[in-house]
Amino acid sequence: MIKVGIVGGTGYTGVELLRLLALHPLVSLQVITSRADAGTAVSQMFPSLRGLVDLLFVHPDEAHLDRCDLVFFATPNGIAMQQTRALLDAGVKVIDLAADFRLQNIASWEKWYGMTHACPDLVGEAVYGLPEVNRDKIKSARLVANPGCYPTAVQLGFIPLLEAAVIDNASLIADAKSGVSGAGRKAEISALFAEAADNFKAYGVAGHRHLPEIRQGLAGVTGSEVGLTFVPHLTPLIRGIHATLYGKLTKDVDLQALFEQRYANEAFVDVMPVGSHPETRSVRGSNRCRIAVHRPQGGDTVVVLSVIDNLVKGAAGQAVQNMNIMCGFAENTALNIVPLLP
Amino acid sequence: MIKVGIVGGTGYTGVELLRLLALHPLVSLQVITSRADAGTAVSQMFPSLRGLVDLLFVHPDEAHLDRCDLVFFATPNGIAMQQTRALLDAGVKVIDLAADFRLQNIASWEKWYGMTHACPDLVGEAVYGLPEVNRDKIKSARLVANPGCYPTAVQLGFIPLLEAAVIDNASLIADAKSGVSGAGRKAEISALFAEAADNFKAYGVAGHRHLPEIRQGLAGVTGSEVGLTFVPHLTPLIRGIHATLYGKLTKDVDLQALFEQRYANEAFVDVMPVGSHPETRSVRGSNRCRIAVHRPQGGDTVVVLSVIDNLVKGAAGQAVQNMNIMCGFAENTALNIVPLLP
Amino acid sequence: MIKVGIVGGTGYTGVELLRLLALHPLVSLQVITSRADAGTAVSQMFPSLRGLVDLLFVHPDEAHLDRCDLVFFATPNGIAMQQTRALLDAGVKVIDLAADFRLQNIASWEKWYGMTHACPDLVGEAVYGLPEVNRDKIKSARLVANPGCYPTAVQLGFIPLLEAAVIDNASLIADAKSGVSGAGRKAEISALFAEAADNFKAYGVAGHRHLPEIRQGLAGVTGSEVGLTFVPHLTPLIRGIHATLYGKLTKDVDLQALFEQRYANEAFVDVMPVGSHPETRSVRGSNRCRIAVHRPQGGDTVVVLSVIDNLVKGAAGQAVQNMNIMCGFAENTALNIVPLLP
Amino acid sequence: MIKVGIVGGTGYTGVELLRLLALHPLVSLQVITSRADAGTAVSQMFPSLRGLVDLLFVHPDEAHLDRCDLVFFATPNGIAMQQTRALLDAGVKVIDLAADFRLQNIASWEKWYGMTHACPDLVGEAVYGLPEVNRDKIKSARLVANPGCYPTAVQLGFIPLLEAAVIDNASLIADAKSGVSGAGRKAEISALFAEAADNFKAYGVAGHRHLPEIRQGLAGVTGSEVGLTFVPHLTPLIRGIHATLYGKLTKDVDLQALFEQRYANEAFVDVMPVGSHPETRSVRGSNRCRIAVHRPQGGDTVVVLSVIDNLVKGAAGQAVQNMNIMCGFAENTALNIVPLLP
Repeated sequence: MIKVGIVGGTGYTGVELLRLLALHPLVSLQVITSRADAGTAVSQMFPSLRGLVDLLFVHPDEAHLDRCDLVFFATPNGIAMQQTRALLDAGVKVIDLAADFRLQNIASWEKWYGMTHACPDLVGEAVYGLPEVNRDKIKSARLVANPGCYPTAVQLGFIPLLEAAVIDNASLIADAKSGVSGAGRKAEISALFAEAADNFKAYGVAGHRHLPEIRQGLAGVTGSEVGLTFVPHLTPLIRGIHATLYGKLTKDVDLQALFEQRYANEAFVDVMPVGSHPETRSVRGSNRCRIAVHRPQGGDTVVVLSVIDNLVKGAAGQAVQNMNIMCGFAENTALNIVPLLP
Repeated sequence: MIKVGIVGGTGYTGVELLRLLALHPLVSLQVITSRADAGTAVSQMFPSLRGLVDLLFVHPDEAHLDRCDLVFFATPNGIAMQQTRALLDAGVKVIDLAADFRLQNIASWEKWYGMTHACPDLVGEAVYGLPEVNRDKIKSARLVANPGCYPTAVQLGFIPLLEAAVIDNASLIADAKSGVSGAGRKAEISALFAEAADNFKAYGVAGHRHLPEIRQGLAGVTGSEVGLTFVPHLTPLIRGIHATLYGKLTKDVDLQALFEQRYANEAFVDVMPVGSHPETRSVRGSNRCRIAVHRPQGGDTVVVLSVIDNLVKGAAGQAVQNMNIMCGFAENTALNIVPLLP
Repeated sequence: MIKVGIVGGTGYTGVELLRLLALHPLVSLQVITSRADAGTAVSQMFPSLRGLVDLLFVHPDEAHLDRCDLVFFATPNGIAMQQTRALLDAGVKVIDLAADFRLQNIASWEKWYGMTHACPDLVGEAVYGLPEVNRDKIKSARLVANPGCYPTAVQLGFIPLLEAAVIDNASLIADAKSGVSGAGRKAEISALFAEAADNFKAYGVAGHRHLPEIRQGLAGVTGSEVGLTFVPHLTPLIRGIHATLYGKLTKDVDLQALFEQRYANEAFVDVMPVGSHPETRSVRGSNRCRIAVHRPQGGDTVVVLSVIDNLVKGAAGQAVQNMNIMCGFAENTALNIVPLLP
Repeated sequence: MIKVGIVGGTGYTGVELLRLLALHPLVSLQVITSRADAGTAVSQMFPSLRGLVDLLFVHPDEAHLDRCDLVFFATPNGIAMQQTRALLDAGVKVIDLAADFRLQNIASWEKWYGMTHACPDLVGEAVYGLPEVNRDKIKSARLVANPGCYPTAVQLGFIPLLEAAVIDNASLIADAKSGVSGAGRKAEISALFAEAADNFKAYGVAGHRHLPEIRQGLAGVTGSEVGLTFVPHLTPLIRGIHATLYGKLTKDVDLQALFEQRYANEAFVDVMPVGSHPETRSVRGSNRCRIAVHRPQGGDTVVVLSVIDNLVKGAAGQAVQNMNIMCGFAENTALNIVPLLP
């Protein structure tokens, strides 16, 4: 049983962490902070947790996070980097669900996120928490940078192809579609029901913060820069990401076997049968990524379809998976969830 | 560990039973039938169950249901009544999620359902499976009639008022709103996305099959006929029922205390604080009913708001709850689920 | 051809006014104001208007509204009352889509809206703009208080019953459901897609600002106070209100004939055939109200179903209808719109 | 004033034709057929048309279509080809909204549509009804093959690039997303609300019937075969198509100017300003296509975003546009519609 704290619990990744941790048999939820809602009962803000989570939100200054064994940051970008060093020094493990420790290139991070980094030296220590790539490093990590939602779906889809070096690394295309919860629980007009329902649009075509993260991850696989066009779209889902990935084959290969072998031992990546079209709802509420690989009309374009729940495998679920690995628990503890369908 | 079978597993109540039973520690899922899809893998039809349910659909003739300890009927009305006697005779417990055993008045049943009843004598034995009313009878029942979705939400909302005899029984109004999954997984134009999305309508105002069921249940509480107007509506939700109930107060009473006391020991009925407005999503995927009671402007009209997930507390979850009671398991086994929010 | 101005054009009633007025053959749209977005092209904020509306938003101080023949206020409550006297003095007609002039009882208005009224004397002059009741007064009005969305749907449904004095005025119930655009184009968490989609809830059960407005309107018909319980709900529609109305019959009457006769000459109220269930989408984008009247099981409860598009008959469309009447245009000018279905 | 008939009026393209033609000042709607619903009032099936369309559905055998000046086929594939010759012989113009006359290669048509073509010789006469390409031919056509929804959005997006020969024709990618009304008003489980809401998936990746149609259209522009990967997706919209198009630039060119010049005289194609992201709702209910062109990070990949309403510019609206051209009416007659936003 470990003592766990959550910093910033009033957003969607916060409430999703609570959903997963409330039933985790090896976790004692100690504290959850909120600057604006200190004193409010968690179950008042999120009635879904009535009877399941008895905590009040606590002001960060009174949170005593150093008494925890592990702390999740479910905060906006730029918060975790202010507090991580003190926690690590106190022997507390840290998992940041925001972007503070995701990019190894500090200059790139500062450009995309528009801030000066508060602890660049810790970035080098941070492990990028994609267990399917970095499981061994995560086991011994003190500090894990939990991947972004798009980067998770896109990397898991491209990795088998890049590891096997069967596509042209210079012309990758990721056409990704996200549900609206990806925008967070923030009062913004563009995320209103009357704006986002019955509507579909691309956004950030000129450049999105997840682009350098994906490029870094893919370059880590190939050993050199990749050329990637990334176009995110907003679709009227609450939860779910569907990434449609395009690459140009440079070798003839049994694509289905390639994917099945790559993920044969991964509990949370499901390679679907030949000809499948994974639906976002088939992973709703669960930590699974489902993938199908196609070669339309036998041409030289490979199409990979990759779906996740952006709040689970794309955020809180992957964070719990990382915690389980860091703490020596069975990796699927509290994550053995049946997706909610319909 | 008991052996369980499901008859008619391709509808929404069927897949929901599978979601709940897949992780039930005391249930061994033996067989699931489908006339049309025999031979198909369950996980092919419902990819959400890949890796969790390994069964194939089996033709009813080859199902050997008599080898089970308990059988759920997740079938259209009129099927369970054909097969129940043989199962009971073979010592198998039966829970019918359809309406075959819900109405004690056979003539009324035959009028509303447009069929001749195949085993009227068993109707008398059947226990109406609303645990908050009939828990003791369910414990020893061989045959349980699982309540309808609207009747569950409406009865749980009215019961405290009727038991306490504080409202006029002659002029009850139940204005109920249901998500579209309540119509079942049937190919009907009215349930198409392009028909039901961004649309709201009443239906069945002249008379709905759940009307006599609710009246029977409420009369069971009051000991005499009640006057009830029931207007169901279709709302663009996948899951969820919201019942707004109106009654005329005949006595001054502490309504909040009345409701809290009535459900103090009920794990699956949550009386919310004064002034609350329960949301359907606060019970999404869970077996909870959440209730709030209001007395607008201190007048003599009481307004009760009652929400359930129509596929869980309104169908499969309540069926599992009944199974747990019938089999002597802890009542919340496999039902300790955190609602999916957002 | 009249010169028209719009104050506060960046909300949903504003853009809806623009949609309707852009094709109005007798209106020259002169000016549209916005304090926050002055200088921005209307079609940049609302790309649906590209090629149809060429105006920029203008700061209120530079709007020269006194050069208009008629001004619409599509502003938050409390703005129109500041500016109306000067406009009237300058000979400009005013239609307020907000609530400033809706309640004749100033004390009640100040209680419900939490402000001191700036021009109580003008309230007496203002005509409540429900053409089906006040058409003659609207013809000669200088100042029209455009009704709220719920009040329009509820009053049109109750009026035939109250005028004919066939129901008990003391126990009216209005169970109303609104789409999310009714909350306005405001950045509020509760109106986010991820909060409001796939969710249904009541709100304001203790008291809603439209309650006194409805009561005032109904009392105007009956000549004395009515007893009304009003429960609004939020449903995942973009547009649409469905009011389900309950009354207790005190006389036997041909309800269908009563409604058909009452609205025989009303272009924008459609009494549907016996047994109908009007859908909100059947009026989507149009200025129609569709009504059906039921008497379930022949009992003494009458159920009226009334649907409108909250942004059209519930706001901008009714405002244009009022303008047409005030200016002597054919009442349906620019309002002859076919609802968008599906 | 011309006499117009509609064959097959009970689907979504049928009701959409009625919405547009009901207010067309130069069209007299003579007859609308339905085999299954003959005798039913159109406004009973589609209450949105109450007061606007007074016709009954007529059995095809009693329709006297030869008395019309122009007939629309809003039927499933394979119907129009049975009846077109007789109509043309009787001097009636024909516009087929289905696919019977879209593919000039009969063998290809028969392969993709799984039928023998009934009148291959008429295929050669048929004009592909994309006015932005074939306006002159449409003027004098007796028979117009109205384009598919995806083909309209995709071709309008690629045409400027292909005409200018600035991208590699061998590696085009069209990642397209459609609302559910594109599946038609047919009772199919996959199009149910409870299946399609809050869900996103690709389909037909191995091959979709619109692929050869798009390839034919693009080859008509370039003069030779193009290489195209086309991946359609289903997204929870009622209406709307968003095509995201990818091409590899082979020349440096001012993309914005290229698109603006190509469509400078097209009333129904709107090239948006640099940096725009067109939303599907910005064309909801209207015959517009809105396009934006991007060159992310200044690389050699061009990204075109193209949106239409699949039932208007992608079906009935384009059909009316074609009728206007064929009959010498102003091209935008009855199509000057403001999109419904929100």
